[in-house]
Amino acid sequence: MAFLNEHYLKLKAGYLFPEIARRVKAFCDGNPEAAKRLIRCGIGDVTEPLPPAVVAALHKAVDEMGRRESFRGYGPEQGYDFLRAAIAKNDFRDRGISIADDEIFVSDGSKCDCGNILDVLGSQNRIAITDPVYPVYVDTNVMAGHTGPAGENGAYEGILYLPATPDNGFFPAPPAEKADVVYLCSPNNPTGATARREQLAAWVAYARHNRSIILFDAAYEAYIGDPAIPRSIFEIEGARECAIEFRSFSKIGGFTGLRCAFTVVPKTLLATDGSGRDSSLHPLWLRRMTTKFNGVSYPVQRAAEALYSADGRAQVREIITHYMGNAKVLVAGAKAAGLTVYGGTNAPYIWVQTPPGVTSWQAFDRILNEANVVITPGSGFGSKGEGYFRISAFNSRANAEEVARRLQTLKW
Amino acid sequence: MAFLNEHYLKLKAGYLFPEIARRVKAFCDGNPEAAKRLIRCGIGDVTEPLPPAVVAALHKAVDEMGRRESFRGYGPEQGYDFLRAAIAKNDFRDRGISIADDEIFVSDGSKCDCGNILDVLGSQNRIAITDPVYPVYVDTNVMAGHTGPAGENGAYEGILYLPATPDNGFFPAPPAEKADVVYLCSPNNPTGATARREQLAAWVAYARHNRSIILFDAAYEAYIGDPAIPRSIFEIEGARECAIEFRSFSKIGGFTGLRCAFTVVPKTLLATDGSGRDSSLHPLWLRRMTTKFNGVSYPVQRAAEALYSADGRAQVREIITHYMGNAKVLVAGAKAAGLTVYGGTNAPYIWVQTPPGVTSWQAFDRILNEANVVITPGSGFGSKGEGYFRISAFNSRANAEEVARRLQTLKW
Repeated sequence: MAFLNEHYLKLKAGYLFPEIARRVKAFCDGNPEAAKRLIRCGIGDVTEPLPPAVVAALHKAVDEMGRRESFRGYGPEQGYDFLRAAIAKNDFRDRGISIADDEIFVSDGSKCDCGNILDVLGSQNRIAITDPVYPVYVDTNVMAGHTGPAGENGAYEGILYLPATPDNGFFPAPPAEKADVVYLCSPNNPTGATARREQLAAWVAYARHNRSIILFDAAYEAYIGDPAIPRSIFEIEGARECAIEFRSFSKIGGFTGLRCAFTVVPKTLLATDGSGRDSSLHPLWLRRMTTKFNGVSYPVQRAAEALYSADGRAQVREIITHYMGNAKVLVAGAKAAGLTVYGGTNAPYIWVQTPPGVTSWQAFDRILNEANVVITPGSGFGSKGEGYFRISAFNSRANAEEVARRLQTLKW
Repeated sequence: MAFLNEHYLKLKAGYLFPEIARRVKAFCDGNPEAAKRLIRCGIGDVTEPLPPAVVAALHKAVDEMGRRESFRGYGPEQGYDFLRAAIAKNDFRDRGISIADDEIFVSDGSKCDCGNILDVLGSQNRIAITDPVYPVYVDTNVMAGHTGPAGENGAYEGILYLPATPDNGFFPAPPAEKADVVYLCSPNNPTGATARREQLAAWVAYARHNRSIILFDAAYEAYIGDPAIPRSIFEIEGARECAIEFRSFSKIGGFTGLRCAFTVVPKTLLATDGSGRDSSLHPLWLRRMTTKFNGVSYPVQRAAEALYSADGRAQVREIITHYMGNAKVLVAGAKAAGLTVYGGTNAPYIWVQTPPGVTSWQAFDRILNEANVVITPGSGFGSKGEGYFRISAFNSRANAEEVARRLQTLKW
């Protein structure tokens, strides 16, 4: 008799974004006229086309694959050397951060990496997660059996939740309690908050003291404009001994539909087995990649490489300037609508407090029905997200301006 | 203190193919002249370029992604409807097999799917695996903690191994003992054997009797020329209640470097939780896909779709005819060399018995050193693979002919 993984049965409702898609579809089916003016600022998906340097690299690689003499079959599971080298040099060593080429693992997405990293970690780890948070961190721990059931407020037993609130600038300090594995995300999804250097240093000190591992999600680092804000956990002394970093090309090069990301696993990062013997996690992650993954599509790796060319960099800067211009428009619009607004200055997300007495999903439904705009309900990111909603700045300028205008027409 | 997943420490040596790569590199570094005439028939990687229909679809999709009005960001994690529909219709319904579009899950590789499927299965399942076998089935079970340590012969405690030998045509019958999850592969990697209809029917009867799940790997189904041999487990009555099937575009369209595959999970397939309640696995796999995966690259999905066009089908037939022509040449060459040969008639793999007293790795080293040909040692696929080696038919015709010739020059 085959058994299923019953931890899956603990998961609450659908994953957030499919649930939003369901409600939006129901609205559009019922209101075909209003559906025509719908503007989507829900899921953080890019809207601008692939940069020309990427398009050119893709065409070139496709042609290579169409000729016998330059055809490529299986690549190295952990990524081609040309891309690992470009990443390690440009994103790390050129910024004074010591990361070797073979500490870069190229993958098909940060969402995958954030979930898959649990494969190499033991099930006895105590997990700490900020709240609100990207739901994948929580759900993958539930699936792996690292939690008990969910309580009334949706919080799972066994997870140490760290509230991210206006009081701590939406970036919690290390707790008194020990945690073995801590998820941090800066620039933050969903709050748009960023961690200051001393905040990250406090976390690295905590992790080294407790021999914990920080899983640092830096998928939005390119949106940091303030040079004082760290763009990598590895800018902090000692982080090579306690951190793994997740990065993505999704929001930099418009790769959400192409799929390419990477994870940095320093060889100096150790974890312990049940008998108290320490081992490096690097060979375990390499083994996982070679056994359960087959590498990223070759043309896509060439496309990612093109983002590091002179043209590619200039085109990326242009895209980010565009989206951050939207963020400015949206922040101003939400403020003009009398709402309290966070984020949107070093991140493409605007985190808005709902008016008194209005829940996140109520705000979602009203904004959808009355302004025909899709946002993301804050409570979908955790119980401490209740009373907030997230507006994504990924859009055309015209749409961002229209959303800013419509927000001001709502009477709460 | 962070704990690692100590089950990884049970894994023996490297994954087979990286180990082969290491030995080949050492040989080439030490013998630069001989390295020039090296022919690779080791890893089953395609050599022919992408078919023109695929190249055209890729270019078209890349151009779409380069224009704002046709750009696509995140797609459905489980695959675009256009591809799921093309697969379900062409590979199943047009062949009289009842599979719905939404029972198809598009992924970036069968290797990934074979490993990831364990995520939705419980850890208390008794696992049965044929021997020799594709190493990923075993290694992913070791990683998931479903086994004890490996013994002297490399076999892991807790796995029920089913010997595949000349006596059973390299396709074992169901055992007397109950197993909850059974891995079957036809056409078989590594032995090139195929399961006859009555053999699969016996397995489906076994699975239904024991309420087991068959994980059926049909990555090489396109190489079946004999119309009497089933190309899908779902050709067998009752399989929708007990089987999951893995398929891939890797060996059909030359997608090993592009990355696209799919898994068929019938909605009628149930498994039980710890309290004895049955649930469909389909929503669990969907939840896994939406939470830990972000879909296959859009241009690659368009490329896969193109394989089902009239041009695409004709080009695929041509590629398969080419590789199966190689197989014929290699079978003849190995036989002419006095070796006992299996497989190679409905599969791109030739399974060769080593001469008396020669181990698989000894044969590997001699063929590498003396014939400058890379094959795969049978013992890398399991203890019952000892005394065999695998020759891959994925090559140019000239190379296949040269390998056939060189095999005959070896004095054992």
